[in-house]
Amino acid sequence: MCELLGMSANVPTDICFSFSGLMQRGGNTGPHRDGWGITFYEGKGCRSFKDPNPAAESRIAELVQSYPIKSRAVIGHIRQANRGGVCLENTHPFTRDLWGRSWTFAHNGQLSGYKKLPVGQHLPIGCTDSERAFCFILNALTEKYKRKPGNMPAVFKYIATLCDELRAMGVYNMLLTDGEYVMAYCSNNLHWLTRRAPFGEAVLKDQDWQLDFHKETTPDDVVTVFATQPLTINEQWYKMAAGEFTLFCQGEQIL
Amino acid sequence: MCELLGMSANVPTDICFSFSGLMQRGGNTGPHRDGWGITFYEGKGCRSFKDPNPAAESRIAELVQSYPIKSRAVIGHIRQANRGGVCLENTHPFTRDLWGRSWTFAHNGQLSGYKKLPVGQHLPIGCTDSERAFCFILNALTEKYKRKPGNMPAVFKYIATLCDELRAMGVYNMLLTDGEYVMAYCSNNLHWLTRRAPFGEAVLKDQDWQLDFHKETTPDDVVTVFATQPLTINEQWYKMAAGEFTLFCQGEQIL
Repeated sequence: MCELLGMSANVPTDICFSFSGLMQRGGNTGPHRDGWGITFYEGKGCRSFKDPNPAAESRIAELVQSYPIKSRAVIGHIRQANRGGVCLENTHPFTRDLWGRSWTFAHNGQLSGYKKLPVGQHLPIGCTDSERAFCFILNALTEKYKRKPGNMPAVFKYIATLCDELRAMGVYNMLLTDGEYVMAYCSNNLHWLTRRAPFGEAVLKDQDWQLDFHKETTPDDVVTVFATQPLTINEQWYKMAAGEFTLFCQGEQIL
Repeated sequence: MCELLGMSANVPTDICFSFSGLMQRGGNTGPHRDGWGITFYEGKGCRSFKDPNPAAESRIAELVQSYPIKSRAVIGHIRQANRGGVCLENTHPFTRDLWGRSWTFAHNGQLSGYKKLPVGQHLPIGCTDSERAFCFILNALTEKYKRKPGNMPAVFKYIATLCDELRAMGVYNMLLTDGEYVMAYCSNNLHWLTRRAPFGEAVLKDQDWQLDFHKETTPDDVVTVFATQPLTINEQWYKMAAGEFTLFCQGEQIL
């Protein structure tokens, strides 16, 4: 199994604290030694940091932990390979372009029979079930919408029905963003929490680090964090149900 | 104007030496302060490092200079903005998927009338002439080839005719790769050189650094480097002519 990390915020926010907790699970407190990646959006642009090497030993992960990139949408992933070898093209998250936006996707779980998923022109580059599921979603979107749709929440509702199909093929926890919206879909293991004023202190589960968000934020900040397992021990994380999906924009839940 | 950097090699090779020279031009020995980026292929996968901040001051550039990522195909770029603001979505190189490969593109120059270039479903994310030219090429390829073509050199010959069209709209120096082939197209300013046995010493133009490639290589290594301006002072760089294109694979010129 892998671990997912995501963020949706109404102001550019750094994710160093949460990322630092997650990275410990990449070969240190967790068994996820088969690479990691994280994608940050800044405006409509995004940049990814990826490494097929264990996160806990990665110099690039070290840089990302200490270099506060401020973003309103983030998706990260640490991998324990089950389908597809350990190499860069199989390392999440995956980013592809659609409708003049960069879409970023990460998956935790395992699918059977995924090679039959129709992908049209959206051919996978690597050989994971995850990338193929992403290509399947993009292909279904381009089939259904001939041009860029105006009502994006309706698009994400349609994506949720595609996720239902994927969940029927195995375990399918997913984070997906177009840089504006962040969608989470739960098969068996996904949590989120929203931090807003009054901000308190948070204590990481995987590392000796606590952070007083009151000192780091302004009263109007709204920041939602998604994670496979809660990253902190003293906050109330919402555990998603099987088959549940949710959509956030600027930190706020809208579906 | 911007500066381009590229590499094609028959063995995974690090580009730290050349990149280090180029980065000095990003705000130090050159005026290219408006961001930089570099994309490395490892197998079919690729990863990019990008920053809209000046290269000479970037902590990420510092990491890339000291962290030898070994690759057989690389494209890098430092930017002096002319079309499109300084932001991440306008930062080269641009990477998009086609036919189950990641294609990476960087442009030096300036185009007029580029907003009329047809791009079909390949909508740009940012607002540069460069990204639009890339989308124009991808759209023309998907129009001409209904499925992944077998004869890739013929595809690059067709791309060269598209580059001729783009050159008629202004200045168009380009590097393009699918991770296997590296293509260079010259409008007015592009050089390359191939290093192979017997290897000698190279002295960087922009920084006090010389490297004895004899110590860093094996006798079978073939490494071609592309750059807007020669990066070393004691080697013979080939200066491309206006409208000339060339195609390399595994370090060797094939077209």
